[in-house]
Amino acid sequence: MSELKNDRFLRALLRQPVDVTPVWMMRQAGRYLPEYRATRANAGSFLDLCKNAQFACEVTLQPLERFPLDAAILFSDILTVPDAMGLGLYFEEGEGPRFRKTVRTEADVAALPVPDAQKDLGYVMECVRVIRRELNGRVPLIGFSGSPWTLATYMIEGGSSKEFRHTKTMLYSQPQVLHALLDKLAQAVTAYLNEQIRSGAQAVQIFDTWGGALSAAAYREFSLAYMQKIVNGLIREHEGRKVPVILFTKGGGQWLEAMADTGADALGLDWTTDIGTARARVGSRVALQGNMDPSVLYGTPARIREEVANILAAFGKGNGHVFNLGHGISQFADPERAKVFVAAVHELSAAYHM
Amino acid sequence: MSELKNDRFLRALLRQPVDVTPVWMMRQAGRYLPEYRATRANAGSFLDLCKNAQFACEVTLQPLERFPLDAAILFSDILTVPDAMGLGLYFEEGEGPRFRKTVRTEADVAALPVPDAQKDLGYVMECVRVIRRELNGRVPLIGFSGSPWTLATYMIEGGSSKEFRHTKTMLYSQPQVLHALLDKLAQAVTAYLNEQIRSGAQAVQIFDTWGGALSAAAYREFSLAYMQKIVNGLIREHEGRKVPVILFTKGGGQWLEAMADTGADALGLDWTTDIGTARARVGSRVALQGNMDPSVLYGTPARIREEVANILAAFGKGNGHVFNLGHGISQFADPERAKVFVAAVHELSAAYHM
Repeated sequence: MSELKNDRFLRALLRQPVDVTPVWMMRQAGRYLPEYRATRANAGSFLDLCKNAQFACEVTLQPLERFPLDAAILFSDILTVPDAMGLGLYFEEGEGPRFRKTVRTEADVAALPVPDAQKDLGYVMECVRVIRRELNGRVPLIGFSGSPWTLATYMIEGGSSKEFRHTKTMLYSQPQVLHALLDKLAQAVTAYLNEQIRSGAQAVQIFDTWGGALSAAAYREFSLAYMQKIVNGLIREHEGRKVPVILFTKGGGQWLEAMADTGADALGLDWTTDIGTARARVGSRVALQGNMDPSVLYGTPARIREEVANILAAFGKGNGHVFNLGHGISQFADPERAKVFVAAVHELSAAYHM
Repeated sequence: MSELKNDRFLRALLRQPVDVTPVWMMRQAGRYLPEYRATRANAGSFLDLCKNAQFACEVTLQPLERFPLDAAILFSDILTVPDAMGLGLYFEEGEGPRFRKTVRTEADVAALPVPDAQKDLGYVMECVRVIRRELNGRVPLIGFSGSPWTLATYMIEGGSSKEFRHTKTMLYSQPQVLHALLDKLAQAVTAYLNEQIRSGAQAVQIFDTWGGALSAAAYREFSLAYMQKIVNGLIREHEGRKVPVILFTKGGGQWLEAMADTGADALGLDWTTDIGTARARVGSRVALQGNMDPSVLYGTPARIREEVANILAAFGKGNGHVFNLGHGISQFADPERAKVFVAAVHELSAAYHM
């Protein structure tokens, strides 16, 4: 493997000194980029794009060609693991992800296999290897997975949901069935992320997109406990370097202390949390990643720079900040505004690292 | 006006002693009740139901016939004020509310009238008077309005939204236009709630359903500041009694201290906030209302009672708790489970008030 030329991102996750605050954007390879839409049109469906390593590599690298980002993230879907468990993932245009089978009973859960990450998810590992090779040490590559709770919601509902009716019915009437499912998912995700690390991922992020739909107590029992199992089981050093792990619970701003207790290296913040307050709460236990509202990119360039400055000032001097949006960049964002954002982070953060 | 036979709800909002914790449910008059669906079928459309005082009164009282609730809430829609501003509210079956006109420019905002609450929203006041008369002092009647920010999102988007693209574009590129709109809405809502109080509402709640979509700083500037204006302008005593005001920002659990600073009497909590932690944070400055996940009603009766017990224990002894769900009761909830919930609050809370 070639030497890493820009390791700001990995250093910041480990709260080591950097010259400027590193920055990447969740969903940085996506529909807001015309070149992404072109590759997607060539690839066929969204899943075809995810499953073809050449295409997945192409879209992963596209935002790096436009912006001086400090990390690349594997282009893949959040639902590859349940798909590998045999649920039959597909996408309806404009409707989001769907599964052909749902998981709603004890028997459904018992019948689910824990996938073999090497074999059943080999196409993801091939993507990781190809991207890592093509990156050629330019920036680190982030691997990722959905959290067990988040994956479970899609598996139980059969797709996206607003109210999580079936999932919460299971939670409040058959919690042991949900625990069995989450336990299986925690095993599967651990193996999946470890295989990504072995294939070349240099940091991993667990996306707990729907943890924020839970009560404080249910979050600890049904989401955080299973992310804890994953953190405990992850390879934390590879190729002679630490492999940082980032936990991101959207809507989890009230639970940062508990998230830091897992031993994760960094916490992702959505934009509802003041990053200065968050830092005061978690102290030096974890790095923080975030957290500009992606909608600020609809604003003027001056407003974008102002918001970047506000977030940098709120975090303050010292180590342990990776700049990001608080959620994925919108398909309606103007790439020129994203450029303003990335440039502002590097330019305005230098003063905080002297 | 007849004397109030059950004033637990008003007393708890003012942090005065009560015998048992009062309880009501957001959206307690709603589709989960077969008798509501029957009245709705007679009335015609949802808006016909809201605009006919006899029907609105009938559905307001229905849940009180089933459950020993400690408050009634005016049956109305959150979007009556923008409708009275001439935007043309309508409902598409299964699609939620829509407006025929949107508000997206400075000229759109300038053209909006501040409605005359007595004249343009007289049908709401008639509902308040009829319900109050029919309640005959049984329990207090709650009036309500959407918050300026929440109303603005519907007016700018033209209906419901997940991402608030147009609203946030205005916020981050033309904040002065949004401020002008919010200022007009704060005036309109203040007049609207005061007219509800004069017509018989004995407490009022401001529903800030979408405040939680904002960053901490934007929440203070674009939502909380305008709720503050309303609180400042409200009639706080009527018929020789205090008229408590409740602020409810869904997703606002991180901002309770700032909400308490408005001088509101009580804060509504969604279920993501631990009510014991919330109480420790706001101390004796405000009462707290909430906060069981409505989805717990999908659980077993034993689980519902357990969750009620957990929330009562988290709040602890002392005054200032109104029990509620953390959001509206689901249309899929079983009324028998709602009965278990209400009974559990009264039964299990007695020990906390000795």
